[in-house]
Amino acid sequence: MSSLASMASVSKSLIFFLLSTLSIFPTHPHPLDPLTPAEFTKVQSIVNNSYPKKNHSVAFHYVGLEEPDKTAILSWLEGSATKTPPRQAFIIARINQITHEIIADLPGHKIISDEVYGGYGYPVLTFDEQIAANAMPFKYTPFLESIRKRGLKVEEVVCTSFAIGWYGEQRRNRRVVRVLCNYLDGSVNLYMRPIEGITVTVDLEEMKILGFVDRSTVPVPKADGTDYRESSPELPIGSLLKGISIRQSDGPSFTIDGHTIRWDNWDFHLGFDARAGPIISLASIFDLQKQKFRKVLYQGFLSEVFVPYMDLNEEWYYRVFFDAGEYGYGLCAVPLEPLRDCPENAVFMDAYVADHNGTPVNMSKIFCIFERYAGDVMWRHTETAIPGKVIREVRPEVTLVVRMVSTVGNYDYINDWEFKQSGSIKVTFHGVKARFGSEIGYTEEKKMHILVGLTGLLEVRGSMYTHTDQIKEEAYGTLLAENTLGANHDHFFTYHLDLDVDGDANSFVRSQLRTTPVADDLLPRKSYWRAVSETAKTESDARIKLGEAQGDLLVVNPNKRTDMGNVIGYRLIPGSSAAPLLSDDDYPQIRGAFTKYNLWITPYNKSEKWAGGLFVDQSRGDDTLARWSLRHA
Amino acid sequence: MSSLASMASVSKSLIFFLLSTLSIFPTHPHPLDPLTPAEFTKVQSIVNNSYPKKNHSVAFHYVGLEEPDKTAILSWLEGSATKTPPRQAFIIARINQITHEIIADLPGHKIISDEVYGGYGYPVLTFDEQIAANAMPFKYTPFLESIRKRGLKVEEVVCTSFAIGWYGEQRRNRRVVRVLCNYLDGSVNLYMRPIEGITVTVDLEEMKILGFVDRSTVPVPKADGTDYRESSPELPIGSLLKGISIRQSDGPSFTIDGHTIRWDNWDFHLGFDARAGPIISLASIFDLQKQKFRKVLYQGFLSEVFVPYMDLNEEWYYRVFFDAGEYGYGLCAVPLEPLRDCPENAVFMDAYVADHNGTPVNMSKIFCIFERYAGDVMWRHTETAIPGKVIREVRPEVTLVVRMVSTVGNYDYINDWEFKQSGSIKVTFHGVKARFGSEIGYTEEKKMHILVGLTGLLEVRGSMYTHTDQIKEEAYGTLLAENTLGANHDHFFTYHLDLDVDGDANSFVRSQLRTTPVADDLLPRKSYWRAVSETAKTESDARIKLGEAQGDLLVVNPNKRTDMGNVIGYRLIPGSSAAPLLSDDDYPQIRGAFTKYNLWITPYNKSEKWAGGLFVDQSRGDDTLARWSLRHA
Repeated sequence: MSSLASMASVSKSLIFFLLSTLSIFPTHPHPLDPLTPAEFTKVQSIVNNSYPKKNHSVAFHYVGLEEPDKTAILSWLEGSATKTPPRQAFIIARINQITHEIIADLPGHKIISDEVYGGYGYPVLTFDEQIAANAMPFKYTPFLESIRKRGLKVEEVVCTSFAIGWYGEQRRNRRVVRVLCNYLDGSVNLYMRPIEGITVTVDLEEMKILGFVDRSTVPVPKADGTDYRESSPELPIGSLLKGISIRQSDGPSFTIDGHTIRWDNWDFHLGFDARAGPIISLASIFDLQKQKFRKVLYQGFLSEVFVPYMDLNEEWYYRVFFDAGEYGYGLCAVPLEPLRDCPENAVFMDAYVADHNGTPVNMSKIFCIFERYAGDVMWRHTETAIPGKVIREVRPEVTLVVRMVSTVGNYDYINDWEFKQSGSIKVTFHGVKARFGSEIGYTEEKKMHILVGLTGLLEVRGSMYTHTDQIKEEAYGTLLAENTLGANHDHFFTYHLDLDVDGDANSFVRSQLRTTPVADDLLPRKSYWRAVSETAKTESDARIKLGEAQGDLLVVNPNKRTDMGNVIGYRLIPGSSAAPLLSDDDYPQIRGAFTKYNLWITPYNKSEKWAGGLFVDQSRGDDTLARWSLRHA
Repeated sequence: MSSLASMASVSKSLIFFLLSTLSIFPTHPHPLDPLTPAEFTKVQSIVNNSYPKKNHSVAFHYVGLEEPDKTAILSWLEGSATKTPPRQAFIIARINQITHEIIADLPGHKIISDEVYGGYGYPVLTFDEQIAANAMPFKYTPFLESIRKRGLKVEEVVCTSFAIGWYGEQRRNRRVVRVLCNYLDGSVNLYMRPIEGITVTVDLEEMKILGFVDRSTVPVPKADGTDYRESSPELPIGSLLKGISIRQSDGPSFTIDGHTIRWDNWDFHLGFDARAGPIISLASIFDLQKQKFRKVLYQGFLSEVFVPYMDLNEEWYYRVFFDAGEYGYGLCAVPLEPLRDCPENAVFMDAYVADHNGTPVNMSKIFCIFERYAGDVMWRHTETAIPGKVIREVRPEVTLVVRMVSTVGNYDYINDWEFKQSGSIKVTFHGVKARFGSEIGYTEEKKMHILVGLTGLLEVRGSMYTHTDQIKEEAYGTLLAENTLGANHDHFFTYHLDLDVDGDANSFVRSQLRTTPVADDLLPRKSYWRAVSETAKTESDARIKLGEAQGDLLVVNPNKRTDMGNVIGYRLIPGSSAAPLLSDDDYPQIRGAFTKYNLWITPYNKSEKWAGGLFVDQSRGDDTLARWSLRHA
């Protein structure tokens, strides 16, 4: 049992809540910059040289920066490094149907590490193999017959791939997906028109159909009222609002230098990763009094999005999604629409990912960066107590936002990193599920906070029911329209935050408010509260379920004090939070056990980035944050 | 014991979370319009006629609309009333040092009800008497000597009045305040420069000093670094941001007709009250499918702000503020600064209050109304699953905000009512204390949510300490600067919300998520959750402490269903919330017992508006929400 306090002199990672990396054409290369198109091409060539196509099938499931060690980055930053950190790529490839973890040195144009992965999990699905799998049913006669039998037009059918998860099978499964289909025919809202009962199982490596089931027929819900397009004649449009826009006639107040963004007193690096999406690194704030930059966040990114559904039907029980680990949260980023996804004053940035064959693919306008002004007030005071004098001071609230939208099937996750003049950082997922908001805030003069958002379309199940009165048994959801059940489910967002508050040796402090009874009859009061602080000594001390008690969650630098002798730290301000409701022994919960607590603290370990494990497709929960954290219980 | 479900056919009030009324010069009078200047003058004349000045001292502590009964308003709205609701004023006056509750009929120019209040509490303090009390020490030799003894300049001293509360005294107290003083001399930030140890007790009716204590001398904290003005040379200014503004070249999309505001599909009445500030009434939303207005909120306003401090020192133990009931949350509203408190596209409104003598006083620009656009997205979806087609639909988020700022001493409460196109209402107190956010949201197609904010300056205690290492005993706060302790305290905001969802007969439903184990070995899953709903039958069923369990808080209309048979209702979406930490027998907690639960439901009763009681100054907790709620336990 090792203490966190002593490990803190190495560094610590706050695992929970928000963010990822992206930018392009760095004019001043930075060791944390994502790979350039030329570097992606170099990676492709390095791997293909070692595994020639004539006798190897090679699929690139992940290509990204192999991040230099934190110590190397910190030495480089301080100017004390004798050499620049190495420029390497990390590749996950399936080579002849075996998973390889490869590290390639880019300047040296060679593989420096190549390990075969022997565990249960599989890497992120590629877009290309999903597209191929989705096309398979259309060449399969039993499927076409099932469609015809239902009286549906095959040309209006659209199919999508679903990861199969793990449900206690002893034997290792092949890389397969379940392909399930929906219907258009008069609507573009395929999610509202599921074709229930038909399941096609496709082997992704062989790209062949392994199984076909046509179990039941319930009606496909009607197209009426499902089209969401503004141009749709059936959409009831209310009074159209007059135009409103944001103007900065003198231009923006931020600068972008490669991937480094500077705004007001903030300085940070914005990277992009196919799995995590945006990665914010090396965020520092300039202290006007001390006239120097002070560190806040070494790195922050989205670690996993866990989405378990609550329907036990044959076509639904395995709908338990890990949006980052199975589908690639960055891979699913979509181009942002100027003036709609981001305001008039936004600047856009591109990114690159590798496709199935390792070829770089440009992702256009997937980040926007803008100064956000909503007409709100950051701080104000009107002073009327001084006779004969009125003082009114008002500071409008202007912040800097970095936005990315990731569309994973029916859901559109709108993710903002917002930097504030007050010193806080707020991470937001906008939208329907307000439940996921959270903040990191300050204890002293500085502050940092966090939020996240979700929009898009609901995933529904086709059903016999046309009215709630017909429902006599478990329906696993709410009847939204005729034959349309909205399926119960949760979205859990887990962020990896490595805070370096005023230096990289930090501790975690939980401050709780305690009622203190007053026994002294001479005192008129009978109680008051005081804050009792405890520094976490082990990883289990720092596993927090929110809502249990009032108080503050603080990341402090135990080696520094203010002039007054107070501790220097940042406050983690959670939004409302949810706890998992699956039983501990349920398979989805074994794989998603990292959702059991709202906050976990682990010592810095470069390889422990992904709360659900590096290989999540069909994973069995043996490489999750919940397991790592047992080491120092 | 009566059931809430049956009482619901009368109507119910959701007591908790946010809002108030204001506007001026109604061109189309509405029965909920606040009193006009002419009506205030009429009230003054009616009361002065009955209680002539030659033999009466008359002080007007509250003058406002005597609201017509809800049934009268609803009949009038539906056009079924045979006469318009009566136009009456409610007056709380101290007449010859006795509290009167007077109802005056305005068209009839007469008093129709005049009751002497015999309880313990006293009405809201008037500005005039506070100003007079604050001046008293300067004519009092022992006080002047104490100032001189400390080496302070008397012309730099500023004094303010504090309500004295109740600490178990059997004997009824007189109407007194404690006058405490602060120091300017080089700073305008008087709150950071308390002159500790001196307490002057002033009788407000006789306007004379009843007591004087000079208990101790601790140094007045330094002026250095306390000035908050942008013009102050000592304020460290960071990089100045370039201009940013909001433009609506075609003008706003809302209309204001008297006090009725229409925007997008919303229609509501904005009133103003000296005690509550803004009052939102009769908020309805136009249903495009049904082509009719549907009721949402009969009335919502701030009921009380309870601010207990946690310092047991002689000059501090009684600092337990009821900002609405003691000081008047509306009375303390301050003029909003165009372009800073509200954006370029804002429209401003005035209001009126009665002064100590009943004379109407114009409060300029205390409301602003504007369309809020922060560059955010209300809803979006990118569809890439349909081969050969990309659909991208993005709806920017534009909302309507009604803002008021109330400055109660050192604190500036920024309060927004925000109406959304999605059908939700959000009530916000902006600022430092993010803890008070909350929302009311929907269950079905409609939605409504809420928030609140706080800024201004901290209230501090002068102290001997100059470094935390010197603190060996309870300090009741945090050392912020030399000789400056930030005192521990809470702010509890309680809103009165009378939701009328799709009609005035509503019920309260609590829906909780329950883990359901699965015993069937044939099923691959071992658990799922389902929502279990319970309708509150008694008032005690509906007392909710947030954070106890997951689920939804719903106000539903049990008499209406959607076409699918689902219940129609609104969801109450709380932000993070706090529970009181004082012991139940502590006097401040007896008076503020309505903070013990985060949500209370009571049947409609026009007189039960103020969670802390009608007369809060020196109250003993006998007229609070906690008491009312015992009736139907």
